[in-house]
Parts: sequence; structure tokens; C-alpha cells
Amino acid sequence: MKKISLEATIDNIKQLDGAAMAKARKRQDMLTKPAGSLGRLEDISVQLAGILGQAVPKIREKVVILAAGDHGVAADGVSAYPQEVTAQMVMNFLQGGAAINVLARHVGARVVIIDAGVATAIPSHTDLISLRIGRGTASMAKGPAMSPEQARRCIEEGIAIATKEIEKGADMVGTGDMGIGNTTAASAITSVICGKTPLKVTGLGTGISEEQRKHKARIIEQAIEKNRIDPGDGLDVLAKVGGFEIGVLAGVILGTAALRKVVVLDGFISGAAGLIAYTLCPRVKEYIIAAHLSVEQGHISALKHLGLEPLFDLRMRLGEGTGAALAMTIIEGAARCLAEMATFGEAGVSEKG
Amino acid sequence: MKKISLEATIDNIKQLDGAAMAKARKRQDMLTKPAGSLGRLEDISVQLAGILGQAVPKIREKVVILAAGDHGVAADGVSAYPQEVTAQMVMNFLQGGAAINVLARHVGARVVIIDAGVATAIPSHTDLISLRIGRGTASMAKGPAMSPEQARRCIEEGIAIATKEIEKGADMVGTGDMGIGNTTAASAITSVICGKTPLKVTGLGTGISEEQRKHKARIIEQAIEKNRIDPGDGLDVLAKVGGFEIGVLAGVILGTAALRKVVVLDGFISGAAGLIAYTLCPRVKEYIIAAHLSVEQGHISALKHLGLEPLFDLRMRLGEGTGAALAMTIIEGAARCLAEMATFGEAGVSEKG
Repeated sequence: MKKISLEATIDNIKQLDGAAMAKARKRQDMLTKPAGSLGRLEDISVQLAGILGQAVPKIREKVVILAAGDHGVAADGVSAYPQEVTAQMVMNFLQGGAAINVLARHVGARVVIIDAGVATAIPSHTDLISLRIGRGTASMAKGPAMSPEQARRCIEEGIAIATKEIEKGADMVGTGDMGIGNTTAASAITSVICGKTPLKVTGLGTGISEEQRKHKARIIEQAIEKNRIDPGDGLDVLAKVGGFEIGVLAGVILGTAALRKVVVLDGFISGAAGLIAYTLCPRVKEYIIAAHLSVEQGHISALKHLGLEPLFDLRMRLGEGTGAALAMTIIEGAARCLAEMATFGEAGVSEKG
Repeated sequence: MKKISLEATIDNIKQLDGAAMAKARKRQDMLTKPAGSLGRLEDISVQLAGILGQAVPKIREKVVILAAGDHGVAADGVSAYPQEVTAQMVMNFLQGGAAINVLARHVGARVVIIDAGVATAIPSHTDLISLRIGRGTASMAKGPAMSPEQARRCIEEGIAIATKEIEKGADMVGTGDMGIGNTTAASAITSVICGKTPLKVTGLGTGISEEQRKHKARIIEQAIEKNRIDPGDGLDVLAKVGGFEIGVLAGVILGTAALRKVVVLDGFISGAAGLIAYTLCPRVKEYIIAAHLSVEQGHISALKHLGLEPLFDLRMRLGEGTGAALAMTIIEGAARCLAEMATFGEAGVSEKG
């Protein structure tokens, strides 16, 4: 795979195409409906125009890039599930039996599955991209989760994977994650970057008790104390309290924006990846559409920091890209309305009196 | 078309299938995800099981039934658009150029177009069901919008149309509306049935000013004073301040529930039709999924009265069934997750520790 540096990628993240956006907005106002009556669908279509640089944006292929990784901190009693579930779920993704497989099929998106750093060895499979940047991270409670070199590699691998998928035809890239313990990493990232206390941004994950949640927040506090983190340096935050899958997703987000394609951000873990990407390049947020608001209580802080408003709140908290997949079909609907609706003139409909 | 009486239809609206729901809930808890992590998608799948009477509910065909009608009250300066737009938009629907055509194509739903009572004559068309119960209603500000016989006919025609579509294979029926002036009727219905002041439930419709909104609310007040309405009698509310398309949609809702199929309720006008249906048969609400929250400020009152929580809020206010179409694809995704995901046993994934 072509290697593209983080720095070159950031350099390529340019302003949205203002001329295409103005044309899209003008066309919206000519379509047979009261101006503004499609609400956020209209705004999305204009954002798509700006991202893709097309006055009438068209989504051809959609892909969900799903990265899996394990977390040393899982040994510290932060999750309701044993660590081997990460690898088992990767097998489930490969066999098409997980929620993301079903929802991606439903909306016509491909799923790209990455072993970013799962602890348990996974048999090789033609549909699996095996990066194995580490065999799970080290526990953030005891020191950095990964080395600075690993943090950079995560991001650059993510950039390369997004680039390859876009070269194959994807116009819209959803983010997805799997990793036992990764809500702990996401909460730590959110706490550091958004400047919130760990307790404020730590949720119940896959289903722990309130008592366990407090323990989880204490572990995060400990990790933040132990590691001296520069909250303004995404690579440092990623290395100290992140995860391999989160780093890969941050790279996917940056790489997609650099090629002027649409990022559909899933839930809380993806939000943490978004925060890392945003810290490295604030403009990246213009390329992102937030799919949904997760039940995980730190997610709202991440979205506020990114200045993104989610499309829906269905009380989901699964990850995998499930929210992103559902959002993709709404976004595609928005693009199709702009492209396919008749104008007042074409349809012979009278305008506002 | 087969005529089915309102009373026979109400008699046929039975409890949801509790056994199918229990089985669906049990299966949800066996699927490879933390229990409850798909949030409302899980609840929807269980509701579908109860409606369709299938432990693993399957949606085959989807249809949006779109009824159009004109309103005498439009002459009283309540809308931003001239009345001829209703007929022009029906032509646009028939030609496939409106937002609902685009979104229905996008989600794989058919659109059924009904002239419930448009003022302007529309040339006959193979795809148009021409009921023409009246040439627009009379102005509610001066007396009843329609006769009691017309009100009953609207509903029974709606029942017959839903029945025919379900016999052709539809498992999910979305509601859609078109009619210049129909937010005035919907606000009046919402005011009467929900016991709110007209000003509280009157919005900006297709785009009037705040001054015009106050005028619109005064017209509704006048209509409510002029007509002595029994708020507990849906037929009376419909006759006095309703509309032909709203009555047809109330019938569609009741007819769909009577045949144990899924109703997907669009926005504010559909909500008013839902209120009429609910007044006639409260149990009907168990068969309804509310698509979205409309910008129209009375919609929230209608949904609260019905005890329904919308799936999303994209600040839409177009009607036509556009919100229902988008919701259908989410609902279908919920059904597919229940049907197609692997269980923990099938996938060899460890359960919660």
C-alpha cells in the first residue's frame, strides 16, 4: 500500500469548495418544495457539494472501515466482556454475522475489516487487513498505551487504507470500531482533549454497573496522572491513552478529508478518533458528518468540541460503524433530493405568492 | 374497491402478538452484541414482531400512501402559496419529480397518489386514485369543513386503499400529505384533540411570517368557536375542522392496523390524521411508528398525545411522506438485524463475564 505521511495528508486538507456550495444552495431553492423545508437534508447536500467539489454531488460507493484493537487496560476490570471477544467478533465480521454486516448490506456499503492490534492471533483471511501494530496496547494506567512510533504508524496506515478505498471508488467513508476496553481509551481521550473530568465522560460501556463505572473513571484519572499528556498534540494523546484501532480511524478520517471525500463518524470511539484527527488538523471537521448521538455519556462532549450535530439519537451504543451505516442512507437521500427533484420551472409549479 | 366499514375496521384492531414479541426480545438478547446496545432498533424489531405476528418479522414491500386535498380556509390568508399548487404538486408526484418520489425510490417504497379532494381538476392518470370527495373543503372559519357523510367517506376510502395495498403485499405503510392550507387544519385538529390553544400548536407552515402565524391562529380560534366540536369524536373533529386528505390518511392508519401491518407516521399533517384515528380507536397507536419530529410547533403535542417518540429530528417540514420514507429504511434495518445477525452460539463469541 502507498505510504503517505501524516504531514502531507494534513497539507492536503483544503477548504470546502465554496463555489459548488453556493450552486447547490441556489439549486435547493429552485426545487419544488418550500425553501428550507427539507431541513438538515438541504444542509447536508450543500456540505456534500463543498466536500466533493460538485454542484450536484453524487455518492457512488460507500464503505465502512472497521478497525479492531485490544487494550491493556481491559485487564484492570473496566469491561463487562473478556478480551478474547475482540478476536471472536473480528471472525464474526469476516463471516458476515455482526450488526455492521447486516446494516452495511442494508444500505449498500462495503465493510473493510482491519486488525489494527488484536491481542489474540486471528487466522489470515482474504478479507482481513492485518496490521497488528501491537498485540493489544499496554495498560494506560501504568504508562503509555503505545510508543510514539506506533501512534504515527496507526495514523499513516489509516490514511493508506482510506486512500486505497477511495481509489477503488468510495465517495463516503464510515468509521467503525471493535475493541474490548476501548470505551476506556475513548473516555480518556475525550477527557484530555475536551478538558472534562474522567467521571463526566465515562459511561457504562458494554454494560458495567455504576460502581464499575466509578472504578473505570478512577483508572482513567490514574492514567492521565501517570502519563504527562500534551492535550494539543493528537499523536501524544493517542500514544499515551489511545488504542491502535482509534489511531487507524483517526488516519482514515484525515486520509478521507485529504482526498475530498465524506467522512461519516459513528459513535463514541469514532468520536475519540475524530478528536485526535481534529487536534492534528482542525479543518478536518468540515469533511465530517456525525451519524448519531451514542448512549455513552462522553460522546456529547466530543461532538460539541468538534462542533458537530448528530443526525439521530436511537440510543445506540454498539459501535462497529452501525450508526454510520444508517446515517449513510440518510445522507445519500439528501444528495439524491438535490440531484433528482424537479425545479419549479421544470414541474410548472407556482412559487411562493 | 372493497368497502369496509369504519366500525368493522375498529373491531379488527386487536392487541399486538405478545408471544411473538417475547420471542423477538429473547432472540435480541442472544445476538452478538451487548444486550440493548442497538437501542431503539431493538425495540422497533420487537414492536414489528407484535404487529406482524412474527417472531422474526420480515418487511416485504413498503408503500407510501400520499393523499392530497384542498382547504377552503386557504382563502383566509393562512398560507404562503396559492391554492393551485396542490394540483400542480399532484402532477409533480405523478411525474416523479417531488421529494417523496426521490426518497421513496431511494428506500425502495412505492408511492400511491390520491386526489382526496383537490379544488382544481386534475387530468386522469393511471397512477392517480381520484376520489374527489369534494372540490376542496369549505372554510372552517365559516362552518364545518365538510359534511358528516364526507368525513365518514374519507375514512372508509382510506381503509379501502390501505387494504388493497396490503393485499398487494405491503407490510409497511407510510403516510403522506399534500394540501395548501392543511397545516391550518392540522393545527385546529391538534388544538381540539390535545386541548391546547391554537397559538400553541400553530406554526409557520410553508413559510409565513410571525404576524401571519398569529392571524392563522386567530382563524383557527374562530373556527373552533363557530363549530361546536366534540373533541372525543374523531369523525366530528374531522368534519368540522379537518380535510379530505387528513380523513383519508386517518382511514389508511386504521385500515393498516386492522390488517396487522406497520404504520409509519410522517410529520404534522399525518400526526393530525393519527389523532383522528386514535380518537376513534386508541389501540391503533400500538401499530404506529412515528418517523420524525417536524419543525411545525404543534407536532410535539400530537406525538405526546399519541404517546409516540419520533425516530429523528432533521428539522424537516415538507410532508408528502418524506420523513416516513427515510424512517422506513431505519425500521427495515432494525428488522434485518434481528433476522440476520448471528447469535453468540452460532458465532462462537463469549458472553458477558
